[in-house]
Amino acid sequence: MLPESAKAAVTSGRLAHLATINPDGSPHVTLAWVGLDGDDILIATMPDQRKIRNMRRDPRVAVSIETNDRDPASGLDVYLVVYGRATVTEGGAPELLQQLAYTYIGPGVKFPPWDDPPPGFVTRITVERVGGIGPWTRGE
Amino acid sequence: MLPESAKAAVTSGRLAHLATINPDGSPHVTLAWVGLDGDDILIATMPDQRKIRNMRRDPRVAVSIETNDRDPASGLDVYLVVYGRATVTEGGAPELLQQLAYTYIGPGVKFPPWDDPPPGFVTRITVERVGGIGPWTRGE
Repeated sequence: MLPESAKAAVTSGRLAHLATINPDGSPHVTLAWVGLDGDDILIATMPDQRKIRNMRRDPRVAVSIETNDRDPASGLDVYLVVYGRATVTEGGAPELLQQLAYTYIGPGVKFPPWDDPPPGFVTRITVERVGGIGPWTRGE
Repeated sequence: MLPESAKAAVTSGRLAHLATINPDGSPHVTLAWVGLDGDDILIATMPDQRKIRNMRRDPRVAVSIETNDRDPASGLDVYLVVYGRATVTEGGAPELLQQLAYTYIGPGVKFPPWDDPPPGFVTRITVERVGGIGPWTRGE
């Protein structure tokens, strides 16, 4: 489901903008670290935030990620948008955050920095469609 | 409505992630250049894109912008999220794009690069609430 070029954008260490839907139908956005498991996008959340409640009620999400590239055809910045469905499960957040911290902060870092962190939540996003500007929209 | 610290993020030359609502209630995201007019955020769009149709039907939007700063308290990346209502008007896009191109591409650039561009659309976002991580969420 997720082209290789899009996978590279997901694992590049750039922040993901996660758009979810509020109970009143309006958009909610937070930024998050993202990882990849096969073709799925993973996000770890420590406290029970609004985005978790939103995704449990309405699993439809959009994830957008910038890149450092410019599109040769248009000269515009390359960026990825992934549309998909989120499944939230309890537990596993500290382990995933530790793994992502090596990409987002640096090698050897301890994250979360404190001992005995709460189990938190892991969100798995099943990709349904990709958009934005980049090789993934040209089927590459 | 928009704190000075948030205004600086809007005019920093970083791309804005614009989340709108599709007819079926799911989120739609595109990236855009943004400008400021008083406390309002401005976006120029050339063709009649899906985001324009979305905002004309449901004006509730979220705009998220990364910064190059880290929050001293948490060590996490500073980012701005603006929630507001969009008003779309026809015309004025080439003039606004030319103005924004000086920030997003560089001084002296001609944008749109072709002659006689279509009038397009200008979207004005009235800010209702700010979020994210940064001085604007601490009332600074």
